[in-house]
Amino acid sequence: MKIAILGTGMVGKALGTKLVEIGHRVLMGSRTASSEAGQEWRDSVNGLGQIGTFAEAAAFGEIILDCTNGANSIEALRQAGAENLRGKILIQVSNPLDFSKGMPPSLTVCNTDSLGEQIQREFPEARVVKALNTINCAIMVQPSLLPEDHDLIICGNNAEAKQEVTRLLGEWFGWKHECIIDLGDITASRGTEMYLALWVRLWGVLGTPYFNLKLVRGR
Amino acid sequence: MKIAILGTGMVGKALGTKLVEIGHRVLMGSRTASSEAGQEWRDSVNGLGQIGTFAEAAAFGEIILDCTNGANSIEALRQAGAENLRGKILIQVSNPLDFSKGMPPSLTVCNTDSLGEQIQREFPEARVVKALNTINCAIMVQPSLLPEDHDLIICGNNAEAKQEVTRLLGEWFGWKHECIIDLGDITASRGTEMYLALWVRLWGVLGTPYFNLKLVRGR
Repeated sequence: MKIAILGTGMVGKALGTKLVEIGHRVLMGSRTASSEAGQEWRDSVNGLGQIGTFAEAAAFGEIILDCTNGANSIEALRQAGAENLRGKILIQVSNPLDFSKGMPPSLTVCNTDSLGEQIQREFPEARVVKALNTINCAIMVQPSLLPEDHDLIICGNNAEAKQEVTRLLGEWFGWKHECIIDLGDITASRGTEMYLALWVRLWGVLGTPYFNLKLVRGR
Repeated sequence: MKIAILGTGMVGKALGTKLVEIGHRVLMGSRTASSEAGQEWRDSVNGLGQIGTFAEAAAFGEIILDCTNGANSIEALRQAGAENLRGKILIQVSNPLDFSKGMPPSLTVCNTDSLGEQIQREFPEARVVKALNTINCAIMVQPSLLPEDHDLIICGNNAEAKQEVTRLLGEWFGWKHECIIDLGDITASRGTEMYLALWVRLWGVLGTPYFNLKLVRGR
């Protein structure tokens, strides 16, 4: 499968590396055609992946993974180009975290709006699925890192796109179908993004980013 | 133990009923000395509990449980009186949910502040412990309702008060010590209150309020 990764940070690298390892064609996009971080990643995967601009990546990918810095996601997607996103599934991983005032970060948007919604509004023809934004990238690509089942919450307006993402997360990374919870339309991004306010504190007190939540339900 | 419950909604009733059942003296406070909801609760516990104003309750209690409607919590605590809260543990259960614009609710305060913090600032001599705000009241008083262990996140500025609350939640309701996670100072209320944006959506898709989270940690 031809997959676009937007963003060359640790999330983009982790996802891109796993995807080339399992045989997919990955083009990792950044603001410039040949960024230093992109080159480092390409070297780290022995040239099995490609790098390019956001637009080149988005044009290449049959599916797009938005792993940009949340503060810049919309601008990065504008550079990617609405025409390159049209009709495609956009797995929107980034969170609108604002680290400019120190730790813990606040959110640049929340409560009555969210980054997921902003992106779906700006690119109405993309099929945005908010996913993977509630966990560390090592767990994204290897949920079995944790010693028991745990849950991933996704949302988006397009039911078919959410089903396809659920299938792909299983195929790519081993996420169990029953551990992926569809929280509803893209407005539910508010919930999964606002959870980051709890996540960053848990990271602090647990002393590790390697954790996730399991929903325990009443009988 | 003499316990003040502020608020006569379903949370106050659930906590008050359990506490009188296990032999504590409970005074449930509301805006008026003898509210209809308060009388109903007193009848429901066969007169084993008392009712009164917020101030009467707070003066009576060795410990205060704030179960008011989050939109009115600060005003209710003002009526309770700073002098009646001084030095006491205030278990701050309510969330700043705003239902005025329909479902799902938004928060009246979030991101860079929280209701827990507002209350601690307004009543600096109370020992505020944010707790129990992340679960349905049936689970608050009976964590064993859920089929496996799950976690409760608390926070507050006073370490001794948090330890005492942890002990009391075990003694009163059966919360296991190891399932209560201290998230840090009262600013961590932002995280547990903002989690409500996720909680209300989960309630919707799960079709039941009887669920909670278990933290699954890496080895």
